[in-house]
Amino acid sequence: MITLAIAQLNPTIGAIAANAENILNTVKTAHSQGADLVLTTELALCGYPPRDLLLNPSFIDLIDHQLQQLAQAIPPEIAVLVGTVSRNNQAAAQGQKTLWNSAALLHQGRIKQYFHKCLLPTYDVFDEDRYFAAADHSDSFTLKNTKIGVTICEDLWNDQAFWGQRHYPIDPLENLVSQGVDFVVNLSASPYSVGKHSLRESLICHSAKRFNLPLIYVNQTGGNDDLIFDGGSFAVDRQGQLVSRSPLFKEDLRYLQYDPEKRDLQPTTLAQTPETKEAELFQALVLGVKDYLQKCSFQKVVLGLSGGIDSSLVAAIAVAALGSENVLGILMPSPYSSEHSVTDALALAENLAIQTQTVPIGRAMITYGQMLDPLFHDTPFGIAEENLQSRIRGNILMAIANKFGYLLLTTGNKSEMAVGYCTLYGDMNGGLAAIGDVPKTQVFALCQWLNREQEVIPPNVLTKPPSAELKPGQIDQDSLPPYDILDNILDRLIHHHQSAQMIIEAGFEPEIVLKVCRLVKRSEFKRRQAAPALKVTDRAFGTGWRMPIAERSP
Amino acid sequence: MITLAIAQLNPTIGAIAANAENILNTVKTAHSQGADLVLTTELALCGYPPRDLLLNPSFIDLIDHQLQQLAQAIPPEIAVLVGTVSRNNQAAAQGQKTLWNSAALLHQGRIKQYFHKCLLPTYDVFDEDRYFAAADHSDSFTLKNTKIGVTICEDLWNDQAFWGQRHYPIDPLENLVSQGVDFVVNLSASPYSVGKHSLRESLICHSAKRFNLPLIYVNQTGGNDDLIFDGGSFAVDRQGQLVSRSPLFKEDLRYLQYDPEKRDLQPTTLAQTPETKEAELFQALVLGVKDYLQKCSFQKVVLGLSGGIDSSLVAAIAVAALGSENVLGILMPSPYSSEHSVTDALALAENLAIQTQTVPIGRAMITYGQMLDPLFHDTPFGIAEENLQSRIRGNILMAIANKFGYLLLTTGNKSEMAVGYCTLYGDMNGGLAAIGDVPKTQVFALCQWLNREQEVIPPNVLTKPPSAELKPGQIDQDSLPPYDILDNILDRLIHHHQSAQMIIEAGFEPEIVLKVCRLVKRSEFKRRQAAPALKVTDRAFGTGWRMPIAERSP
Repeated sequence: MITLAIAQLNPTIGAIAANAENILNTVKTAHSQGADLVLTTELALCGYPPRDLLLNPSFIDLIDHQLQQLAQAIPPEIAVLVGTVSRNNQAAAQGQKTLWNSAALLHQGRIKQYFHKCLLPTYDVFDEDRYFAAADHSDSFTLKNTKIGVTICEDLWNDQAFWGQRHYPIDPLENLVSQGVDFVVNLSASPYSVGKHSLRESLICHSAKRFNLPLIYVNQTGGNDDLIFDGGSFAVDRQGQLVSRSPLFKEDLRYLQYDPEKRDLQPTTLAQTPETKEAELFQALVLGVKDYLQKCSFQKVVLGLSGGIDSSLVAAIAVAALGSENVLGILMPSPYSSEHSVTDALALAENLAIQTQTVPIGRAMITYGQMLDPLFHDTPFGIAEENLQSRIRGNILMAIANKFGYLLLTTGNKSEMAVGYCTLYGDMNGGLAAIGDVPKTQVFALCQWLNREQEVIPPNVLTKPPSAELKPGQIDQDSLPPYDILDNILDRLIHHHQSAQMIIEAGFEPEIVLKVCRLVKRSEFKRRQAAPALKVTDRAFGTGWRMPIAERSP
Repeated sequence: MITLAIAQLNPTIGAIAANAENILNTVKTAHSQGADLVLTTELALCGYPPRDLLLNPSFIDLIDHQLQQLAQAIPPEIAVLVGTVSRNNQAAAQGQKTLWNSAALLHQGRIKQYFHKCLLPTYDVFDEDRYFAAADHSDSFTLKNTKIGVTICEDLWNDQAFWGQRHYPIDPLENLVSQGVDFVVNLSASPYSVGKHSLRESLICHSAKRFNLPLIYVNQTGGNDDLIFDGGSFAVDRQGQLVSRSPLFKEDLRYLQYDPEKRDLQPTTLAQTPETKEAELFQALVLGVKDYLQKCSFQKVVLGLSGGIDSSLVAAIAVAALGSENVLGILMPSPYSSEHSVTDALALAENLAIQTQTVPIGRAMITYGQMLDPLFHDTPFGIAEENLQSRIRGNILMAIANKFGYLLLTTGNKSEMAVGYCTLYGDMNGGLAAIGDVPKTQVFALCQWLNREQEVIPPNVLTKPPSAELKPGQIDQDSLPPYDILDNILDRLIHHHQSAQMIIEAGFEPEIVLKVCRLVKRSEFKRRQAAPALKVTDRAFGTGWRMPIAERSP
C-alpha cells in the first residue's frame, strides 16, 4: 500500500516562511499518520497567484532557500511534492522565460527532482506566459515500485475528447500514459466560479476513464485578492469513480491508499458539497471576505447600510465571515431617503446583531450646495447633485474606516458595475467589493436563501423596488430595464461574447439592448477604478477583464 | 525604383470604419504621389492595443469585413500593407489561439496575402499570448521583382548579438535573410518611454548592418489610454545608416525610394527629434492628454490648483494639449493652506491664461466635523481628518466635472503613487493621471525646462518645499526622505527589481530603504483604484504592473 496525504492548503501570497511552516506542520501530521507521500497545491510555497512578485530575483532566491530548508526539515522517509517556482537555466540560450512553474519532490533530506508545468493558462485572470517557460513533457518518479506521474493544474485541462477540441498543442496526460505511469497526481490552484468544482470532477473522471488511470487532483483553497480558491480536492479511480473528496472552502488534510496489487485507489468517504448553488456561492463569498481581511491584517469592517438588498447581503456575508462584533453598519439618510431606508437597515442590523451608527447627510448637502452655488446657481438638479450625495456618504465611510482602522466593504453588485449605475468615489468606495461579481438577480436569490429558515434579510428589503434614493421618488427601473431582463442581456454580452445584433435576434427589445450595450461600454472608466471584486463567475470585471477605455468599437 | 510611403498612423481603438477611412485617404494621397507600396502600422485597422475587444467574435467579423472593403476601395495598382487581426483556422485542431496578429497585403482589388507575427510580447503592458497564436516563420512577397520581407513589431526585437541573449526561440530576421529578401519592413506599435526611440534606432541599425539588409520600421503614434505611441518611424540602409525618420508624436506620411540597381534605400531628410529629454517627455505627455480627451469625446478639463508643482505642471500640459480656453483651474484653500497656495496658483493661471474658480473648503470641514463628532469626539486629529480635506476637494472637483461635462485631470506624480502619499477618493480622483508615471525629481526638471525662455511656472512654486498642507506647517519631507533620495530608491526598487538588501548595500540608509519598501507595498490597494497614468517609463503602475494586494512577501 502507498498512503497518500492530500494537503489542501491556504497559503498567503508571498509569505514564504509562513507557508513553509504550514507545509512542514502538515507533513509532520501526515508522517505521524503513516503517509508515504504528501501532495500539496500549485505554488504552495509562495501562494497562487504571486503575479509580479515573480519578477523580483530576490523573491525567487528566497523561495529557493526556503525550499532547501524545508527539504532538510521534513522527516527523511516521507516524500512530499511541493508546488514551487524554479529557475529555468536554459532561458537565455533558448529564448525562453526564466522561470518554471514546478513541483519539487522532497525526499530523504533533499530536493530529489523537479517537475515542470507544460500548459500555461494565459486567458481570463491567468498570465502564466508572462512569467513561465512551458515544459515540453511531463515526468514521473518511482515510489515503492510505483510509477507516479506529476502534473500541474492546467496540464490536465486539455482532454480533446472532453472539450471537443484541443486547447494546447500537447497533452501531458497522454504523454504520461505513454510512459506507463501507475497513477497521476495534479497540484492545482484553480479559482472558484459557481459550479466549477462539478466541472473539474466531470473532466477528471472523464480522463481517468478514458485512459484507465487513477488521478488525484489537489486544489488550493482560500481567498487571494479577487480570486477565491475553493479546494474540493478529489481523487478518481481507474473506472472514473470518485474515491476521495476534500471539503470546499477550507484547509484539509486527508488520506487515500493506492493498492499496488489492484493497481487502483481505495474508496474513502467523500466530503459533502453544499446542497444548493446559493449555499455554495454564499460560502465562497464568506471565504473571500474573511481571507482578504485576514491577509491584509484587518479585523473589522464598516459598510453603509441603505436598507437596500445589496448592502443587506454584504452585511450578512461580513457577519458570517468575521462575526457580528466585527461589523459596523453606518446609516446615512438624506432628505430624499425613504423612511423605510432607516427602519429596514435597523431591522437588518438587529437580525444580524451588528452595531450601527447614523450620520444624516443633509447638512453636508446644504454646505456643498452653498459652496458650489457661485458656479452652479442657475443649473437644474442633475447627475452632479446625485453623485454628490453618494460621495458625501463615501467620505463619511472612509473617514470612519481611517479613524478606527476598519476596512470599508463596498456593496455594489455586478449588474450595477456593468451598466455604471454606481458613483465613482461614492458608493464604489471600499477596499473590497464583496458582491461585485454577483448579478442582481442572484443577489435576490441569495437573500431568499438566507431567509430559508429564519428571517435574516427583512422582508421589506426583498419586496420593495430597488432605488438609489438620490432624488425624490427615484427607483432603479426608471433608468434600467427590469433586472431579470438586464441580467440576461448582460450574461449574453459579457459571458457569451454576443453582439448587440445577436442579442436582439434572441428576442430582446432593440432599444433596450442597444442602451445596455452603450452603458456597459461607457462605464469602463468606472470599472478601471473599482475595488477588487470577489470573482464568482467565468468572466468578472477584475484582473481578467482587460478592456480599453478610450475606444469606439461598433 | 520602388517608391515606399511610410504612413505613421494614429488609429482610435475599435473605430474600425474611421481607421479604415483614414488609411484609404492616406493611400489615395500616396498614390497621387506615385507610391508603389504603402506601409501602415501594427493592427492599424483596429488600433493597438485592442485588448479584450479581440475576444468578441463580432469584432473580428467587422475587421474582416472592413478589410475586404478597403481592399476593393484602394486604387488597384498600389500595394498596401495593413496591420490587422486575422483568424487562425487551424486553432482548434492544433491547440493554438484563434487569432493571428497580421499584416494583410492589399493589391489589385483584393487581399493578396497575410503575414503573421512570430514573436508575441507577453511582459509589462503586453498580453499578446492571451490573444494570438505565434507564427513559426516570417514570409515575403515580390513587388517589381524585389523580394520584400514582412515582420511585425517584436519580430525585430530578438537580435541575439545586440541583446547578448535570446528572448525568443526563433529570429524572424535571420529567417527572412535565409529566404534571400531584398529588404524587410516592420509594422509596429511600440509604446513610448523616455529615450525609447533612440533604443529602437540603435537596435535596427545594428541588425541592418549585421545582416547587410535595409530595414524599414513604421510605428504607430497617438495616445491610447495609459500608452503613448511616439511614432518616429525610420528606415536604415544596408550599412546601418539612417535614411529616413518621421517626426515623433504625430501622424505623418513620407516617402522613400528603394533602388533595385544599388539594392539599397536612398537617403532622405530626417525629421528632427526633440532637443532635450524634457522637451521629448513634455511632448509625449501633451499627446497623451490630447488623445485621451479626444478619443473619450471630451473637450475640456478641470483640475485642482494647489499652488504646488504637480498641479502647475499638469495645468501647463493641459494648456499645451487643449488650449487655455479648455482648462479650468479650481482653487480650494482650507484653513491650513498657506497664503502662497492661492497667490502661486493665481500667478500660474495668469501665466497660462486659464480661468479659475475658488471654492474654500473650510465650511465643509466644519460640517463634516459636526456630523462625525458623535463618533470621533475624543479622538486626536489624524489621517482621517487629513484625508477628509483631500476628499472634500475631490468631491468639489467631481461635482464641477459632472455638472459641466469636463474631464477631471488628477495631478499626482509617480513618487507619491509609489509610497501612497496621496488620498484615495481625494486628490487621486480623476479620469487621467497626466504625470502619474513621472517621478517628482523629473517633475521639477520639466518645470525648469518650461521656464527656459519665459516664466510659465511661478518661481515660488519651484523653490518652496513641497507640502500637502493638510495640517498646520506640514511639509512632504516630514514623512518622506528628500525626493532625490526617494526617487533613486524607487528607481532601484521598481525599475531594477532590486531588493531592500541590495539598495542598502548600494549605500542608502537602512531605515529609509526599509520604510520606502514598506510604504510601496502597503500602497498597492491605492494604486489598484488609481486613474490610468500616462506611461513614460519602462515600468509604470498601470496595465503592466500586476501586483497582489493581500501579500506578505519579505
